[in-house]
Formats: sequence, C-alpha cells, structure tokens
Amino acid sequence: MVKILPMSIAKLGEFGLIERFQRQIKTDASVIKGSGDDCAVLAYDKNFFQLFTCDMLVEGVDFSHKENPYLIGRKSIAVSISDIAACGGTPRHCVISIGIPRKTSIEFMDKLFKGMLDLAKIYKINLVGGDLSSAKNLVVDVSMLGIVEKKNLVLRSGAKAGDIIFVTGSLGGSIKGKHLKFTPRVKESATLVKNFKVNAMIDISDGLSQDLGHILNASNVGAIIFEDLIPLANPARNLDDALVSGEDFELLFTLSPKDAKEVFKKKFKFFPIGEIVDKKYGLRLMDKRGQELILEPKGYRHF
Amino acid sequence: MVKILPMSIAKLGEFGLIERFQRQIKTDASVIKGSGDDCAVLAYDKNFFQLFTCDMLVEGVDFSHKENPYLIGRKSIAVSISDIAACGGTPRHCVISIGIPRKTSIEFMDKLFKGMLDLAKIYKINLVGGDLSSAKNLVVDVSMLGIVEKKNLVLRSGAKAGDIIFVTGSLGGSIKGKHLKFTPRVKESATLVKNFKVNAMIDISDGLSQDLGHILNASNVGAIIFEDLIPLANPARNLDDALVSGEDFELLFTLSPKDAKEVFKKKFKFFPIGEIVDKKYGLRLMDKRGQELILEPKGYRHF
Repeated sequence: MVKILPMSIAKLGEFGLIERFQRQIKTDASVIKGSGDDCAVLAYDKNFFQLFTCDMLVEGVDFSHKENPYLIGRKSIAVSISDIAACGGTPRHCVISIGIPRKTSIEFMDKLFKGMLDLAKIYKINLVGGDLSSAKNLVVDVSMLGIVEKKNLVLRSGAKAGDIIFVTGSLGGSIKGKHLKFTPRVKESATLVKNFKVNAMIDISDGLSQDLGHILNASNVGAIIFEDLIPLANPARNLDDALVSGEDFELLFTLSPKDAKEVFKKKFKFFPIGEIVDKKYGLRLMDKRGQELILEPKGYRHF
Repeated sequence: MVKILPMSIAKLGEFGLIERFQRQIKTDASVIKGSGDDCAVLAYDKNFFQLFTCDMLVEGVDFSHKENPYLIGRKSIAVSISDIAACGGTPRHCVISIGIPRKTSIEFMDKLFKGMLDLAKIYKINLVGGDLSSAKNLVVDVSMLGIVEKKNLVLRSGAKAGDIIFVTGSLGGSIKGKHLKFTPRVKESATLVKNFKVNAMIDISDGLSQDLGHILNASNVGAIIFEDLIPLANPARNLDDALVSGEDFELLFTLSPKDAKEVFKKKFKFFPIGEIVDKKYGLRLMDKRGQELILEPKGYRHF
C-alpha cells in the first residue's frame, strides 16, 4: 500500500497559502480594503480612513540570535511604519507581542525595548499595549494603526499602462545590513501624496521583482524596467541583490507621465526605473546591452 | 574573579518586566488608556472609543503541538474577543500573524484557519489582514480592534470599597480543556454595561486570584472573597483550580451594592463571590470554616 503523506505548506508556497486563506474571508462595509495590500483600510471618519497592519519578526528567519537587540526592536517597529507609509498614511498607535526565551537577559530586553521606543518617538507613535509570552525562540509581532486622508490613500491596484515606475532610494543594500537599519519612508510618502496622484505603491520588503509583481497582479498590468536606471546601493554586488534579495524598504510607486514630468521638473529625489505596460508583456527587464529579458518575480518566500 | 552572569528575565518576572517597559512609555492625548488594562483605549468619535488589544499564543506554552488545530485557531481569536468584552466593548476587526514550521501540513493550516473563521463569523469580526512567517514553533498572534460607547467603558481601575465582586460563570475548568473551548463573554458584557454601572472588570485569563489582584492594584483597594460562593466548574478538583489555574475567560467585575441588589432582584445569572474592601486588608479568602486567609495573588506567569 502506498502511504500518502500529508501535503506540506512548502508545496503550496507562502503566497499560495495566503491566497487559500483570503478566498474564504468575507468582510462587511466597514472594510474598504481587507487582506492583500500593505495595510487593511477601514472606515474611520469623514475625511480619513484608518490603516491597520501587522508584521512578525522571528529569530532565525528575520534576524539571528546574535543580532544587536536594539536593531531588532527598531526593525520590528520600522517594518510596520513602512507599511503605513506605503498606503500614503501616518502611523499613530501600536501594540507589541513578544515571545521571549526564559533565559533571555534583562539587558537584552532593555535594548530591544529601547530600539522600539526610540523609533516610536521619532515617528510620534504611541505604544499602547502588548503581550509578553515565553517562547523557545524570540518572536516580535507589532500591530500598527495609522490614518490616511481619503484622497491620499494609495493601494497596489491602481497602476495604469503608461505610468512611470519610481523608487524612493537605492536597492540591494538589504543583505549588507540595511534591513536592520532602514529609514521608513514616511516623509517621502507624505511628499508624494501631497504633490501627486500616486496610482499604486508598495514597500519593497521582498525584493524589487517580487514586490513589483504584487503591483502588476493587483493592477492587472505588466511592466518593463531598465537595468541602467535601477539605483544600486553601494554595497550591492550586482543587480540580483536589488531584484530578489529582499528588504530594502524603499517605496516603489507609479505616476502618470504628466506627474512624472513634474517629479523631474521640480527635482524631487525619486528614481524612475521603468514603465507600466499592458498585462500581456508580463514583467520584463531591459539589460545594459538593450536586450529584453522576461523576469520571473522572485524574492524572499517563507515556504 | 567572580563572573557576574547577566540577570535573566526570570528574576524580574513577567509583571516586573511589563512594569519596567510601561514606566518608559509616554503617550499623547489620543490615548485614553495605554498599556495596563485588557485593551488600550483610543479616541475615536463623539460617542465611541476604539479598543485595541493583542494576544500571542505559543506552541508549548499555550497549547501542545498535538492539539486540535481547529481549537488553536478558535482560541487565538477568542482570547482577544474576551479582552474587548472585558472593557465593555464589541469586537470589529482583526489582523493575524502566524509563525509556521515549514513541515506543517496544509490540512493542519486549513483547520487552524477554519477555527479562526468560524469564531470570527459568530462574533461578526472582520479578518482584514495578516503576516505569515516561517518559524521553528507555531506562534499565533491576533490583534483586534473593537469599539465601546464612551459611557460603557470599563477599566480595571474603578473598583470601590463596598462594591460586590461577581463572576459570569464557573471557574476551575481551564485545565480540563475549557481554555481551548471557552465562550468569550461578549453578550454578558453587553448586558452588564446596558443595565449597570460596572465599576471595574477584567477577564480571568491567569486565575481568579491573580486577575482579581490586577483589579485591586489598579483600583487601589482590597477584597475579601468567600470560598462557599466561588462557583466551581464540574471538572474542577478543588478551589486551587479556580484560584490559580488560569484560563477560565469568565468576566470578573464589581458593582455598587445598589446595582448588585438589582442583579439579584432581576435574576441575572451572575455569581457574587465577595466584596471590595479597604486596601489595607489586601486580598483575603474566607474559607468554608469561616476562617480568613491572606491570599497571595498567584496564577500563570510566563517568567
């Protein structure tokens, strides 16, 4: 007899598992946008929506146990701030759950917490609660609330063929430590939504190609990006670091050609890297020799 | 030379660690009540406050790896619902972070998720987002938003000497499995805040004595409870199961003597178990023989 082993989630993949869950969820009219964007968007008041997001950092996955605890704490807050910025909003309140190995020193926890507090202070975020639990490995999960003016809300789904694709900064520095020290692009997001109609936006937390892929899927479009235009971080060794190696936490966004011209004219420091095209072209890279390659969206996947 | 080992968090204890953090937090005027109650309470609109809470469940701590995943999923949602109920509110939206071992089967995840969905449906809660991560052990962290009419908000801090102490149901069933199958007391909470001025409330997630201790600390009062009056769950073997063994998730609340009389007259099914007294008496138990014992608040502590 053949024994049928239960299918593991690795077979389905991270995004397969997420989709499997999403399909079953129904939400009511208070939910403007549920699962599937950088933040959930909830009805709030006449002029604002509320943004709601969560991010879990796990020892051995998002950081090593030898990492500076101050930077772990800092990052745990920064990743959620980045999600709020990616929707055009301002972070306001957060709660923090921490699973802590019993042998952890007080000194370690003090540093972890200081990393959280310092960043929260800079961004005027209220730490309003939490839950501490014992655990075998350190786990930090931050849930954050923000607000966004209704007219400023940006989702992944609004990119249009002809849009110019931009990023807010250089890519590929993640593996050299940027993923622990990045500056969430709240100011840049505020500048963008104040001055332009941003059609689509996401923060790059899984690599340019994968996160651009999310915009393309949500917007039902394709894209071509140009190797020559991609701003590489100094420590980046090659283009692959930018395309697939994860956590740069720059914002990736698209503007109409008219708005894009304004970016250049007014000398905003945003970097154009390509153009949104019809869906049938998929995702393509024009390399330095002028050859078009079809890019498979790739990046960090948990399973 | 004597080597000084770093002091571990076990030395400080769960509540010591929490206090150490809380002392450093500053919040702005949008925060009605920050860390230190069942939920954070945030400014919302003219008539309502928003409630915000998070609860982390960890494999090996809150459930064993052999547990029915449906019940793990159910519990992960239920504990946060219970926190919202403890503040007199109604749960509305939640986000879910899950750390998942790579070898986990799809079947397991389907059941876990169904446990979440089924309970969310009953309580009309919108699942609006989440974060999936790989992890060595299963970790589920749910963050929930609710609303509460301003006049109905109940904190831990309003108990007054002379108040009668009630619970919504029998205690001590936690270790026999109730902790995985409990019904969050949302209906009871709604009945209470509609009909009475509830002075203080908490959900019993760490045992009666420890959670009553939280009310006494926050309200700066003492209490005497009566062994004869404590409603024991059928499976409870003795009083200790109720006093210290954790997760009954009944509501524990205090009412003025006048309101307490109304509870009896109108035959509400709430159980009086004692009385709030001056702080100098601490926490006492009158046993079946009429002897007063000083109770040390005890219950589940993570460190």
